[in-house]
Amino acid sequence: MILPRIGVFDSGVGGLTVLKAMAEQLPAHYSYFGDTARLPYGTKSAETVARYAIGATRFLEAQNIDLLVIACNTATALAFPLIQEAAHVPVVGVVEPGAAMVAEVSKTRSAIVIATEATVSSHAYRDALHRHGLTAHEKACPLFVPLVEEGWIEHPVTEQVARIYLGEALQQAPEQADVLVLACTHYPLIAPLLRRIAPGHMQIVDSAESTARAVKKMIGEDSFCHPERSEAAVATERSRRVPIDLKMLPAEHRTFRFYVTDSVDKFKRLATRFLGRQVDHVEHVDLENRG
Amino acid sequence: MILPRIGVFDSGVGGLTVLKAMAEQLPAHYSYFGDTARLPYGTKSAETVARYAIGATRFLEAQNIDLLVIACNTATALAFPLIQEAAHVPVVGVVEPGAAMVAEVSKTRSAIVIATEATVSSHAYRDALHRHGLTAHEKACPLFVPLVEEGWIEHPVTEQVARIYLGEALQQAPEQADVLVLACTHYPLIAPLLRRIAPGHMQIVDSAESTARAVKKMIGEDSFCHPERSEAAVATERSRRVPIDLKMLPAEHRTFRFYVTDSVDKFKRLATRFLGRQVDHVEHVDLENRG
Repeated sequence: MILPRIGVFDSGVGGLTVLKAMAEQLPAHYSYFGDTARLPYGTKSAETVARYAIGATRFLEAQNIDLLVIACNTATALAFPLIQEAAHVPVVGVVEPGAAMVAEVSKTRSAIVIATEATVSSHAYRDALHRHGLTAHEKACPLFVPLVEEGWIEHPVTEQVARIYLGEALQQAPEQADVLVLACTHYPLIAPLLRRIAPGHMQIVDSAESTARAVKKMIGEDSFCHPERSEAAVATERSRRVPIDLKMLPAEHRTFRFYVTDSVDKFKRLATRFLGRQVDHVEHVDLENRG
Repeated sequence: MILPRIGVFDSGVGGLTVLKAMAEQLPAHYSYFGDTARLPYGTKSAETVARYAIGATRFLEAQNIDLLVIACNTATALAFPLIQEAAHVPVVGVVEPGAAMVAEVSKTRSAIVIATEATVSSHAYRDALHRHGLTAHEKACPLFVPLVEEGWIEHPVTEQVARIYLGEALQQAPEQADVLVLACTHYPLIAPLLRRIAPGHMQIVDSAESTARAVKKMIGEDSFCHPERSEAAVATERSRRVPIDLKMLPAEHRTFRFYVTDSVDKFKRLATRFLGRQVDHVEHVDLENRG
């Protein structure tokens, strides 16, 4: 049984929501790289973020991945073209799949985008939605990430904060906005809470779900996970595109590997919360002191 | 008129509460260095923090400072001896002055220390209080920094979070604790709110106030700010110790210089809130690309 090997990269734990969404839809061998020693990326220059992201890309490519997912809004917003140029495998970011899904579901062609301050300042989602012919109102929600990392998922404080942020966003957004975009990889954890608070007519699009869908589509179109081919045959025929039925691939064969640049213990604790399953095997990696 | 030149170093804006407390007590020329591009320090190794802090020390020493204040809990906790060894001027950290003030005011010899997760993990305050013969109960309050940076100083959400954190701390702490230590440089901004919530019998000691007091004492004992000496004379007699009356030094002569490694605009906005006065002149510095 040959499963695709997917590399997932984020500055921290947020990308685990993308990993979770993918794992639910797509049996594969997953290698997750969290650059936890150098987070947050949001305050760093585009050049620095690109340098870090390309270092992570090299590390994951050395694990023989077939596809790389940049499960980090900042890295996607600031460095996607540079990463794509440096990578030897197909690369998927989180911004474009989210924008494409909004374009699919919005009737009024207007959306509210909630994200971190860094993602809002980059205007990456606004620009991507513009390219799809939609208007976007962006709202920074800087307290959501620390609230999620504190574990206050279904918590009165988080609900109060969400009511304030959404209230402000709705006040400033055009009335016809009919989609709420969760443009931060931490936000899927509070999606049920946001669903309760958001106006009933608004649809919620989260970038983890939409990225997973984009990856599934890309993998499904590629031959490298054809169940009847040997590994050697796949290696030589990777460019042929044969649609496959992913349901044929049993989930129990998949593996998960985690690599982080900072404390393994803190990552394990947060990862267990993000993935909703025990995470035991996490390896520490020091990229700064590699040649 | 010769005023002392004081360098203040922090990873971000938090150290501005220390600067504010000093400026209220001590007329001086202040140079503030905020390493905003590389914050937070809390997740980084002791070696990395020491390297960054020593780089900042060199930069501030090039501004001819007479004294260096490490207005950063993480840098003090992880790298104080290394910074002191590398510096050519006297160095004051934030931990020891806070512990000394607690030792002065506590009758029951027991305190509750609230701080960031990184400071709590370092146990720097617990160890410093032990050296003064006190016991300490440490409690991490990770949401306070983002709440202060969001500007929610007197805000119902911050009050609710504070009630939860203090409630948990009081439940676990020994009953006789009679001092609450604000062991994070962001916390003085919510000191009035914490005063309302904390039990009436508890005294509040904040590390900004106590550090300012320690610096004032140190400067007052030194000759280099003697008002009757010329700059050249002071330079040669810096080792002589002559007590001076700080009230003789008019505040209008002092200057404030700010240097940051990341966005100047974000720093200006936050600094204005932290200092309670308009901050206009902030210079961007790139330490990473200096030889």
